[in-house]
Amino acid sequence: MDLFENTERTNLEQLGEFGLIDHLTKNFVIGKSTTFKGIGDDAAVLDAKDKKVLVSTDMLLEGIHFDLAYTPLKHLGYKSVQVNLSDIYAMNGIPEQITVSIGMSSKFPLEAIEELYEGIYLACEQYNIDLIGGDTTASKQGLVISVTVLGYADEKDITYRNTAEEGDLICVSGDLGGAYVGLQLLEREKLVYLENPQIQPDLEGKDYIVERQLKPEARRDVVDLLKSRGIKPTSMIDVSDGLASELLHICKQSNKGCNLYEEKIPIDPMTFETAREFGLDPTVCALSGGEDYELLFTIKQADYDKIKHDVDVSIIGYITEPNAGKNLISKGGSVHALTAQGWNAFT
Amino acid sequence: MDLFENTERTNLEQLGEFGLIDHLTKNFVIGKSTTFKGIGDDAAVLDAKDKKVLVSTDMLLEGIHFDLAYTPLKHLGYKSVQVNLSDIYAMNGIPEQITVSIGMSSKFPLEAIEELYEGIYLACEQYNIDLIGGDTTASKQGLVISVTVLGYADEKDITYRNTAEEGDLICVSGDLGGAYVGLQLLEREKLVYLENPQIQPDLEGKDYIVERQLKPEARRDVVDLLKSRGIKPTSMIDVSDGLASELLHICKQSNKGCNLYEEKIPIDPMTFETAREFGLDPTVCALSGGEDYELLFTIKQADYDKIKHDVDVSIIGYITEPNAGKNLISKGGSVHALTAQGWNAFT
Repeated sequence: MDLFENTERTNLEQLGEFGLIDHLTKNFVIGKSTTFKGIGDDAAVLDAKDKKVLVSTDMLLEGIHFDLAYTPLKHLGYKSVQVNLSDIYAMNGIPEQITVSIGMSSKFPLEAIEELYEGIYLACEQYNIDLIGGDTTASKQGLVISVTVLGYADEKDITYRNTAEEGDLICVSGDLGGAYVGLQLLEREKLVYLENPQIQPDLEGKDYIVERQLKPEARRDVVDLLKSRGIKPTSMIDVSDGLASELLHICKQSNKGCNLYEEKIPIDPMTFETAREFGLDPTVCALSGGEDYELLFTIKQADYDKIKHDVDVSIIGYITEPNAGKNLISKGGSVHALTAQGWNAFT
Repeated sequence: MDLFENTERTNLEQLGEFGLIDHLTKNFVIGKSTTFKGIGDDAAVLDAKDKKVLVSTDMLLEGIHFDLAYTPLKHLGYKSVQVNLSDIYAMNGIPEQITVSIGMSSKFPLEAIEELYEGIYLACEQYNIDLIGGDTTASKQGLVISVTVLGYADEKDITYRNTAEEGDLICVSGDLGGAYVGLQLLEREKLVYLENPQIQPDLEGKDYIVERQLKPEARRDVVDLLKSRGIKPTSMIDVSDGLASELLHICKQSNKGCNLYEEKIPIDPMTFETAREFGLDPTVCALSGGEDYELLFTIKQADYDKIKHDVDVSIIGYITEPNAGKNLISKGGSVHALTAQGWNAFT
């Protein structure tokens, strides 16, 4: 599991910061009409035209957000872009630019950084994003990745968290809990490997949940789908910290309650089975696992017919008046207060 | 020199990420008309109106960009904003928003983070900036600060690096080398302290150069001055890596040469004397020291009369045709090739 085994090594110290930036960005072509000027000056210059500009930022730190023992650098680069794009889609906007700042040990071979950038580039290519700037520096302790994303939307299309209304249907795209269960699997195989490096990791048949963890996809397709159906969500958020935490954000900011039905929460069979293998409750994984990067949104009941046949969107509950509480209705029919046990970086 | 000595300690683990963000940002008021929505959703929303949007980002890592042994956290917060604002001024634009991402040990007391944010807030207040988002996370790798700045300018006012013309005068604001010499002083006092913790740091009378290092000020006033004089620089860059490196950027990107006169380079007497105490050449400190965050710009000769009486702007040379080379003319009159030995984070 040594990612740098058998790779060529070029020395970062010789290349220097400007040489490295030139090397990494020279093949990158700017494509968006909102990008007036990309890399190469003190700041990039953007032309928002008549749109509002959406800005979000996320930082990924080695040892906290990722473990290089089982995270291929290309996947890491890809993921660090996706988690940012997801925030713009969650506003019902279109991301068009990113800046990427990287801190890494000067002992890192150039080839490793190139792998990381391959993943960044792949994400940019597939999601039609311009890389317009950033910062590259040495780090004394580990890999640091900070991405800022810029997106655009017409004012009337922007979807906030604080605008859910009583009676709205609660919807979520895709399925939940997979990224968390995938992480448990990777952590287990790491321990097996550390105990006996002769044993190869056993991830056979688990591709889906491993990919959910290592290579998530931001749900641009869901934003497109809603637009094509003529639906503007009444509120929206992306699922980075777990369904419970995100739904509580919507309820709190909208000053509403909710009824969430356990049996309606979409969980992939592989997630379900693997959670059980680990002695975990699949529902808890979906509620509190996080990192699924699905979209959680509310729609008016009148829009139900427009979306009811879309298998990739599940209706999992509805918004209530605030005094009705925030409830999880279990498969057995009992009512529980919904609580966030989402990921806390500080514990 | 223990910054946390005798301070109260509140546990970050108990507060959690959302609690911490709420706590740190609750008193922060949004003020710019370009800020449509600040902190509190998946992304901030900005209204560029009819302006171009300028974007830049800078990352500061403990052990590389700062040493907490002698850097007060409030100063560090202030500086991490200033270095970003400086990039927008260097485009002849006005910065209006920042996002701030912080990674820190969960062992950090809340009071330490509050100090850091006090500096961030002070910079925002003094420079009229909205804090619109960010990310707060635990770090296993020491303190990590990543700031992205957004600014605005009319297209006609934006000043790039690649537009200097033959005959243009090379100008620099303020004085150079102070931040580097201040750093040498702080490093020396740190060593003295480590050898004998009873000895208090001797920085008496050195306030100016210590401040140049710990608490730089981005040169908004120079942008304002040029505007009030009716001067649009033909090119501009900020001095973060040293005068030589920055001037070479302008020459390379503009495909021009330059003559830079050593005797014209502005160096404060305290910088000069302290450099000599350390056995350093003050000119080399100015050329290669970096972190002064002054503005280096070129103007048409016709604009000379508009600025010649401004003592805070020095005319240090002129732009030549590319084949004339990039020359430093020493005080003795000898001609040297200008070379960048600016700061390289990887060595």
